[in-house]
Amino acid sequence: MARYAEQVELESKPLRVGIAGLGTVGAALIRIIASDANAISRKLGRDIVISAVSARSRSRDRGVDISGINWIDDPVALARSPEVDLFVELMGGEDGPALASVTAALERGCPVVTANKALLARHGVALARLAEENDTQLGFEAAVAGGIPVIKTLREGLGSATVTRVYGIMNGTCNYILTRMGAEGIGFEECLRDAQALGYAETDPTFDVEGYDTAHKLAILASLCFGTEIAADQVFVEGISRITQADIRVAADLGYKIKLLGMARKSDQGIEQRVHPTLVRKTTAIAGVDGVLNAVALETNHVQELLLAGPGAGGDATAASVLSDILDVARDTWVPPLGVPAAELKPCERAPMRVHEGGYYIRLNARDVPGALAAIATRMGESNISLESVIQRPDLRAVEPGVDAESTRTVVLITHETIESAVREALTRVAGDGFIVGQPQLIRIEEF
Amino acid sequence: MARYAEQVELESKPLRVGIAGLGTVGAALIRIIASDANAISRKLGRDIVISAVSARSRSRDRGVDISGINWIDDPVALARSPEVDLFVELMGGEDGPALASVTAALERGCPVVTANKALLARHGVALARLAEENDTQLGFEAAVAGGIPVIKTLREGLGSATVTRVYGIMNGTCNYILTRMGAEGIGFEECLRDAQALGYAETDPTFDVEGYDTAHKLAILASLCFGTEIAADQVFVEGISRITQADIRVAADLGYKIKLLGMARKSDQGIEQRVHPTLVRKTTAIAGVDGVLNAVALETNHVQELLLAGPGAGGDATAASVLSDILDVARDTWVPPLGVPAAELKPCERAPMRVHEGGYYIRLNARDVPGALAAIATRMGESNISLESVIQRPDLRAVEPGVDAESTRTVVLITHETIESAVREALTRVAGDGFIVGQPQLIRIEEF
Repeated sequence: MARYAEQVELESKPLRVGIAGLGTVGAALIRIIASDANAISRKLGRDIVISAVSARSRSRDRGVDISGINWIDDPVALARSPEVDLFVELMGGEDGPALASVTAALERGCPVVTANKALLARHGVALARLAEENDTQLGFEAAVAGGIPVIKTLREGLGSATVTRVYGIMNGTCNYILTRMGAEGIGFEECLRDAQALGYAETDPTFDVEGYDTAHKLAILASLCFGTEIAADQVFVEGISRITQADIRVAADLGYKIKLLGMARKSDQGIEQRVHPTLVRKTTAIAGVDGVLNAVALETNHVQELLLAGPGAGGDATAASVLSDILDVARDTWVPPLGVPAAELKPCERAPMRVHEGGYYIRLNARDVPGALAAIATRMGESNISLESVIQRPDLRAVEPGVDAESTRTVVLITHETIESAVREALTRVAGDGFIVGQPQLIRIEEF
Repeated sequence: MARYAEQVELESKPLRVGIAGLGTVGAALIRIIASDANAISRKLGRDIVISAVSARSRSRDRGVDISGINWIDDPVALARSPEVDLFVELMGGEDGPALASVTAALERGCPVVTANKALLARHGVALARLAEENDTQLGFEAAVAGGIPVIKTLREGLGSATVTRVYGIMNGTCNYILTRMGAEGIGFEECLRDAQALGYAETDPTFDVEGYDTAHKLAILASLCFGTEIAADQVFVEGISRITQADIRVAADLGYKIKLLGMARKSDQGIEQRVHPTLVRKTTAIAGVDGVLNAVALETNHVQELLLAGPGAGGDATAASVLSDILDVARDTWVPPLGVPAAELKPCERAPMRVHEGGYYIRLNARDVPGALAAIATRMGESNISLESVIQRPDLRAVEPGVDAESTRTVVLITHETIESAVREALTRVAGDGFIVGQPQLIRIEEF
């Protein structure tokens, strides 16, 4: 029992932390451990010292003084150093030195804290098992939704509640782009360039804008929510690169915002995990989560919805999450890394894409010929799709390459509740009729 | 060290819980412990059993079977029973049996979980100290914002971060009333009656609608945020009973919603704690928190804003929070009840109401005579208050008793940033000029 009296006794033994990877987060962590030294002692009853670091370049200016800290070139050697009580992995990468060093630390019973979502998405179950076998801990609060304590909430905060659904905005790059498209009426490409200039997006933005980053995070959350193995390869993924100004504007006029959501739910058929652009009502709390903010909503058997929103990235917020994990380890709180012992995790059986509730947004470029709209509406009716709204306005024009804006009219259909296969079937028939040009845009609507 | 192997060993020893108070939350707790039995064993590695209960009436139908549970009439005797490993207090009341039984349990080193915000607002520091002296725990997640794990987040989840400001919607009754006034255009009194009929408001609603309930919760949060003693008597409190349809409508037209917020911040001058109706921009996440939902936002030195939103009341959500505390106790996680040892809490020195940033909403009933508006505007200018908007519309009419709607015109002024004393001074002068009738309505605007 780690009681107050015992904690006071521990005061003379600082926790010695080794950090591998000194990018933005690593540098921020060094800075925060120094600036928060008093708060750490007061909250924890003992100090934290950085005993060793490792990074690619020893000489790079990081804005923090590392001259007094032991430098170890090889991160695996750092992870094995007897002078390291806790190993922090901030190098990134799903294999390579990250995997090797985390494995080395856990194998000797040294606790690990990491912010590496790619590593966890791929090796999380094996690493959790390794931590348990060696009676040690693996913390990864910073790996999902940066500064938001969603991992701790799932592991400890929900008590015995069973999560039935999780959804959220987990990629700041996408949310920034969609927010700016909505606020300023500019296109995807221009917003992406600004995001890159501001450091919110990588030079190769594919991983973020096509939804793969969100898929990694969702797969980690789904494991914690449902007690299943992490299965990032089973996530249905669709990114935001095809979202146009027309979509944003029409959605806004109908009372919606477009957000890239990751969603997972458990049903009798298995686990459904999906990432795609989604129309959400402007009046919902999730719609108010703008810019680089992230949010995760949890629905349990006891609580209809719990929403956690905050910064999803940024050096300070991410480093603060890393530090909260370090403090939990120092406090000797022990819970299995994935909420339940790794051996008890069930296989993640993929459920088919659910019968969707809440309708679809469909944008078509219809040929500007008599009877086109009637033919489209007829095909929808044949597939038992009832339409809530049909929007055709002179200001909505095709922008897709290869579609002639002069000879087409943009038509937006909002369906009542229907099933995805019916929508796909109707669109195939509409295309077969020859009344539309290019690919239809299909965006799911979620009612929360 | 409470490791996995040790947890497995504990499996044969269930945690015996005694519950005093079997209202909505107590009954829900009994139901949930039964229905979640498998999840509890799986997550905790041991079982929870209810060994004894106490309530006012033994025979009342609560929808749960308590026939097999030991009944102890006196809650203090229950708290002292050697068959109780953990005492749950759900009776309510800031003194009397709640205080006596919680004290009795802590004195013998028995951990306590309570949902009683009034008890904590008044005796929280003394009880935290008693828990620490007896090397035991005091959990109260359910006392603030029902199903939202804000206490755990403040105690453990933020690591070493220092909270600089906390604000939130912490009373479901008020939020329900304000939401319905906004959505349906009906008055405060009618919404209150509906809230009472639906069980969202007490027969005597004063405690909720006048802001005192929010003040209790805010004082508990402020203690955890700033490491200061709980000081509920130092909260500036203003309720929602004077909010009219005119206020809601004009605010909406200007892009705002009116919410009852509790806010606390630490400055060089001390701790500022206040509860009052507030104009918040519709586009903010907090504005999206509607109906009986609650939300708490935390600003730290590392994270600009973390928002937690969810159900603030309701039997199941509150009982789930009580159970999450029970699980933490069973897991033997130990942190001081108020985040830092009670002996280290600093006195809560009251800061004067802060120089307000973000302007004021002022609604006046001006006499319908020439020169009235000019005189009002002049007085504002004399106090160096610059106006962002002035709204006078035929549909805005006085509704206050004693104000003649025919001979007055409702005028709404939105000021740029100014200080509260300047606004009060200007309004006193305006009243002295004899151009207004009745009391002006003054609502603070917060930009988040």
